[in-house]
Amino acid sequence: MKKIKAVVYGAGATGLDIARELVRRGVEIVAAIDIEHVGEDLGELAGLNRRLNVEISDDADETLQETRADVAIVSVASGLEEMHPHIKRCLEAGINVTTTSEETLYPWHTSPELAADLDRTAEMHGVSFMGAGYQDIFEVNLPVILTGASKELTGVHGVNRYNIDDYGPAVAHYFLAGEKKSEAEQKLSKGEGPQSFFRMTLEAQISALGLSEKEYSQETRPVVADQSVQSEAIGRTIEEGELLGLEIDVRIQTYEGVEFTGTEIAKVYDQEDGALNAWTIKGVPEMYVEDKPTPVKVGTATQIVNRLPDLINHQPGFVSVTELPLPRYRVGPLQLYVNG
Amino acid sequence: MKKIKAVVYGAGATGLDIARELVRRGVEIVAAIDIEHVGEDLGELAGLNRRLNVEISDDADETLQETRADVAIVSVASGLEEMHPHIKRCLEAGINVTTTSEETLYPWHTSPELAADLDRTAEMHGVSFMGAGYQDIFEVNLPVILTGASKELTGVHGVNRYNIDDYGPAVAHYFLAGEKKSEAEQKLSKGEGPQSFFRMTLEAQISALGLSEKEYSQETRPVVADQSVQSEAIGRTIEEGELLGLEIDVRIQTYEGVEFTGTEIAKVYDQEDGALNAWTIKGVPEMYVEDKPTPVKVGTATQIVNRLPDLINHQPGFVSVTELPLPRYRVGPLQLYVNG
Repeated sequence: MKKIKAVVYGAGATGLDIARELVRRGVEIVAAIDIEHVGEDLGELAGLNRRLNVEISDDADETLQETRADVAIVSVASGLEEMHPHIKRCLEAGINVTTTSEETLYPWHTSPELAADLDRTAEMHGVSFMGAGYQDIFEVNLPVILTGASKELTGVHGVNRYNIDDYGPAVAHYFLAGEKKSEAEQKLSKGEGPQSFFRMTLEAQISALGLSEKEYSQETRPVVADQSVQSEAIGRTIEEGELLGLEIDVRIQTYEGVEFTGTEIAKVYDQEDGALNAWTIKGVPEMYVEDKPTPVKVGTATQIVNRLPDLINHQPGFVSVTELPLPRYRVGPLQLYVNG
Repeated sequence: MKKIKAVVYGAGATGLDIARELVRRGVEIVAAIDIEHVGEDLGELAGLNRRLNVEISDDADETLQETRADVAIVSVASGLEEMHPHIKRCLEAGINVTTTSEETLYPWHTSPELAADLDRTAEMHGVSFMGAGYQDIFEVNLPVILTGASKELTGVHGVNRYNIDDYGPAVAHYFLAGEKKSEAEQKLSKGEGPQSFFRMTLEAQISALGLSEKEYSQETRPVVADQSVQSEAIGRTIEEGELLGLEIDVRIQTYEGVEFTGTEIAKVYDQEDGALNAWTIKGVPEMYVEDKPTPVKVGTATQIVNRLPDLINHQPGFVSVTELPLPRYRVGPLQLYVNG
């Protein structure tokens, strides 16, 4: 057995959550990359009250070439277009990649060329990459395994509500938090609203079930504050009449006739909210499962880190979270089996 | 691709449920074995309103030698001691075995010698066997995958209530349904009550998580009818003062300090009941998941049948349900990939 060596690539809210979990689980952090906080020690930046002797660097290429890491955890953006160069340079350095980037979970419909390019690059360099995190267990594996008890499957429907204030400014702005209602509505009416993250969740399910997407549609509604709400992610108070976030209905028809639908509620919480993750498996029998409280924030870093050994051991190329062994808790420090 | 050929071994309530599902999913039933209904056609016995040209035979050895089946589904008992000769003769005939026998799910603590004997026999004959059915997804895979989001895991707790009237006379009598309260209490006080099925469920989880059992204990309480209730399984009315079934608390300590507990409520339903399957994953974070309505009856046959391709393709020997690929719905008729 040997220690896992990891690069923390992106040291924002999510990256630092992951860094703390890596340290706690005995993973050796060998480098950290970000365009901010350059020269600071990752341990101090992560609030560990001790130095990790890992200095934040903004020279990604040099840093990746110098380290001999098993895996890089890349937390810089949600969409694959922004993520692509960051993932690619890790793969080219022979380093496996995992990320909480929502689109990377299953990017074959939204960004097929970029996905194929990364898949080829990973295969050429003998490493693998995947998008995981919160979606992995609660949104993909959980509903998929329940379909194993379906006598007839006609559809899958999910409802997911989460606090975008937990994910830093990039995610908050992505869902238009803080924008004026009239401006947001204009954007949405012109089709300039964001892609729902639920699309990739449902597409990962569809792929796991061996089905084929025929048609995708989404409908987006603004969620407007009716009182002022403090937002940590955007660094100010969201006033009455400004957006807390969005509510997005997603619908995917498959050629096989099974319909995948969902409602994603991505907003800065006002007082009555709570996290929700609920799935209905339609057909015979109809099944309903709900987990509460949904531990979105703690779940993200934990799931990413628990998956590292399986990802590192997986065959090269793009990996979907349903292709790995069963997600499960691992007792003690995370380690890798070494052959020979 | 080729059709799966199956033997229906045991044509009671569960066996006939499975037979109907096999027919519906395009599995070819090549033989049927039971000590009752000998000479009857399985299709007519299963209420399919047509002949399957499969005659019930009570000569298991001859029947198994004559068929070239991929798999036998054995539904004759819950405990491995009774199941052992039936499973063994299938394995010796080179036929994979699956069963809803609860103990077979994970028999390494309750019947280690019998389990090891079957494991060796299966390996010698190049086939595999497993216990599956309802426990597979709802009681083992579902809680296990949630632990993949555990930052710290201190325990797993489950509550499961089901109607033993759905499972035929063997299961009903196993849980003392219809016995007089005083007689049942005497039995229980002498330690002659039944083994909880939940023990194997928790032991399958423990194995999947790489933990080791230190100590097992169970506490059994009779559930007494306070009004008369008609029972199909025992073929008469259960009168006030007689047992509807049992409620069993199970507790397993592991050497790693994670505690597995559960309450199994196995009874003939009186009016207020409903099926329940709920799991708490203890530690950080604490997670709770509940699926309702729990489709125990339809779920059992469906899950067993959905698993056939994975079981048949698995490497020889005993298989635990967490070792197979992710349980999932399969579109269309079930078939097997054929190499070469």
